[in-house]
Amino acid sequence: MSCKAMYRIAKEEGIGADTVSMGEIYTAQAAGFPPEDICFHGCAKPWAEIEYAVKAGAGLFGVDSLEELARIDRCAGENGVRQRVLLRVTPGIDPHTFSAVDTGQVDCKFGEAIQTGQALALVRRGLASRNIQVAGFHCHIGSQIGGPEPLMQAVDIMLDFMDAVRRELGYTAGILDLGGGLGVPYTAEEPAVDYAAVIRSVGEHLTCRCQALDYPPPAVFMEPGRSIVAAAGVTLYTVQDVKSIPDCRDYVLVDGGMTDNPRYALYQARYTALIANRAGEPADCPVTLAGRCCESGDLIGENMPMQRAAVGDIAAVLVTGAYNYSMASNYNRIPRPPVVMVRNGEDRLVVRRETLEDLVSCDI
Amino acid sequence: MSCKAMYRIAKEEGIGADTVSMGEIYTAQAAGFPPEDICFHGCAKPWAEIEYAVKAGAGLFGVDSLEELARIDRCAGENGVRQRVLLRVTPGIDPHTFSAVDTGQVDCKFGEAIQTGQALALVRRGLASRNIQVAGFHCHIGSQIGGPEPLMQAVDIMLDFMDAVRRELGYTAGILDLGGGLGVPYTAEEPAVDYAAVIRSVGEHLTCRCQALDYPPPAVFMEPGRSIVAAAGVTLYTVQDVKSIPDCRDYVLVDGGMTDNPRYALYQARYTALIANRAGEPADCPVTLAGRCCESGDLIGENMPMQRAAVGDIAAVLVTGAYNYSMASNYNRIPRPPVVMVRNGEDRLVVRRETLEDLVSCDI
Repeated sequence: MSCKAMYRIAKEEGIGADTVSMGEIYTAQAAGFPPEDICFHGCAKPWAEIEYAVKAGAGLFGVDSLEELARIDRCAGENGVRQRVLLRVTPGIDPHTFSAVDTGQVDCKFGEAIQTGQALALVRRGLASRNIQVAGFHCHIGSQIGGPEPLMQAVDIMLDFMDAVRRELGYTAGILDLGGGLGVPYTAEEPAVDYAAVIRSVGEHLTCRCQALDYPPPAVFMEPGRSIVAAAGVTLYTVQDVKSIPDCRDYVLVDGGMTDNPRYALYQARYTALIANRAGEPADCPVTLAGRCCESGDLIGENMPMQRAAVGDIAAVLVTGAYNYSMASNYNRIPRPPVVMVRNGEDRLVVRRETLEDLVSCDI
Repeated sequence: MSCKAMYRIAKEEGIGADTVSMGEIYTAQAAGFPPEDICFHGCAKPWAEIEYAVKAGAGLFGVDSLEELARIDRCAGENGVRQRVLLRVTPGIDPHTFSAVDTGQVDCKFGEAIQTGQALALVRRGLASRNIQVAGFHCHIGSQIGGPEPLMQAVDIMLDFMDAVRRELGYTAGILDLGGGLGVPYTAEEPAVDYAAVIRSVGEHLTCRCQALDYPPPAVFMEPGRSIVAAAGVTLYTVQDVKSIPDCRDYVLVDGGMTDNPRYALYQARYTALIANRAGEPADCPVTLAGRCCESGDLIGENMPMQRAAVGDIAAVLVTGAYNYSMASNYNRIPRPPVVMVRNGEDRLVVRRETLEDLVSCDI
């Protein structure tokens, strides 16, 4: 989540906002998003950002570590606030996705691990902190999860931990935030995710496990992020060049690339693309879709089946509503593109295109 | 090259500027850089950017393809200009660096390949184009080149090609641009590059080969980019957290990361880091230096020997003057940091820190 329009929609829909920086909180505020529905997650929160969020009245913090807990406690105290928080723990699960976005295993920069006893120490300290109100727990096991199993496993581990906390410290949690991670299919080979079925399975499993442990069922939070926005996004490029290298491959070069979509360069993430103005023609040309940055790795995909492309055509890359605009850069001083929302055939500009003046606006 | 200050220094030093976008040309102009010393390189140049560069009076274009040549020819004609250009050809060399930045092999999004005959076709068309003046040739074989051999090999291939062009088409080139790619050591294990020796060897080799072919020695251009700016840059972070995970590893978390330095996430590029305020202490703690973005892959390095770090310490990552600020993003709405130049103990802000207002300035 990053642009104001997204926060406006979330507000309309009554959805809370998970943020990981002051910049995200500021964007939410600028969109008129209610601060009490904001949770400030993430790791390595600087003091100035903690203070900003406390003063803004963020409803929850996701506390990432003992160190951070102490800092939030002190900051809340200085500001006369008792800050509600979720304590982030790592359940020790490998959800089998990209290693760069696995976040549930013990070896992780996020949270305090259950296995090592560090999570329990975090709870003990949280409950003893004068200006902290522990509202519950948070975990996040990774991205691109396709079925309920990893989340059910997380429920098992989290409830066992919560039960141990209850026995040891007499604390019963009111909230269990299972984090995000529900996947989306980027290509036809990837199966669709039945979100309703996943949520139902996880919910039933949780209810059942709570009964077995005689644990009052907590409110369950989930962060559907990518799964609700990715497929809504389509990136449109104009084809600038087509290069056929004999006995090698065909490159289709467009007026964008890793500056607006770095996910192939970062993770070799796969996408589906088409030539929008030839969508009815057979997609029988396997091409490399390349951008205009000054490095060979500036690719959007390789061996992508597309319609035969010509200069001036519009190439559309699908399922780019998540982690594209938000990760965009000005590498090679390429302005970031505009974002246009479309509903019922009506379009609305929600992020304007950067100008040349924008590019030098911070240069002294 | 991206910020105005860099172009100002280049201008003072009488260095030309290689640009790959209208944004880079605009930045150079905004810094008062003479347009005649600008070469507009890169691939997939959109019409609007070609027109911008022609109108700005860019001294040279690096022509990437037949398609682009036709477009530049037409644009120059419409603007009453005879545009001087270098024709970019791929010599078919693997310089053994990161595959993402290899640019000399036949299988490449840049240039037209000598081996396939496409380069010769480009020259033929260039010489026949009414509004084009072919000034010479350009190649670029990759990045992080540590010795003269790959460049000498490029000289051999390019001169053989130029000789063939002379025989076939009666054209003798006045400029040979060998591109960039001179490396820098990022860690103590990587050998220093003796730039003077590399340039001398390449120059002597070129002179010798020209004599053998009876080819008038062309003016040689080189693009030292990274090699002149990388080591001048140091990124300073404040340590926000230190996490020791028993039997696993130690994380040092800082108030930056892949937003200001995506090179580990992109290429697993290695860096040298230290705790600046403990620089005299032994660097005997192998740590993972991690950023604050919402993904586990947001690392600046793993297994980096550093001094024992504490919250509030200053972590310095060395040799970050190239491909860091220029590749920076606002992922997770983290503002891009300021850039400060230091000379003889005097500091000067050349790029200001982005503000929260900047982050939403394009949001409608």
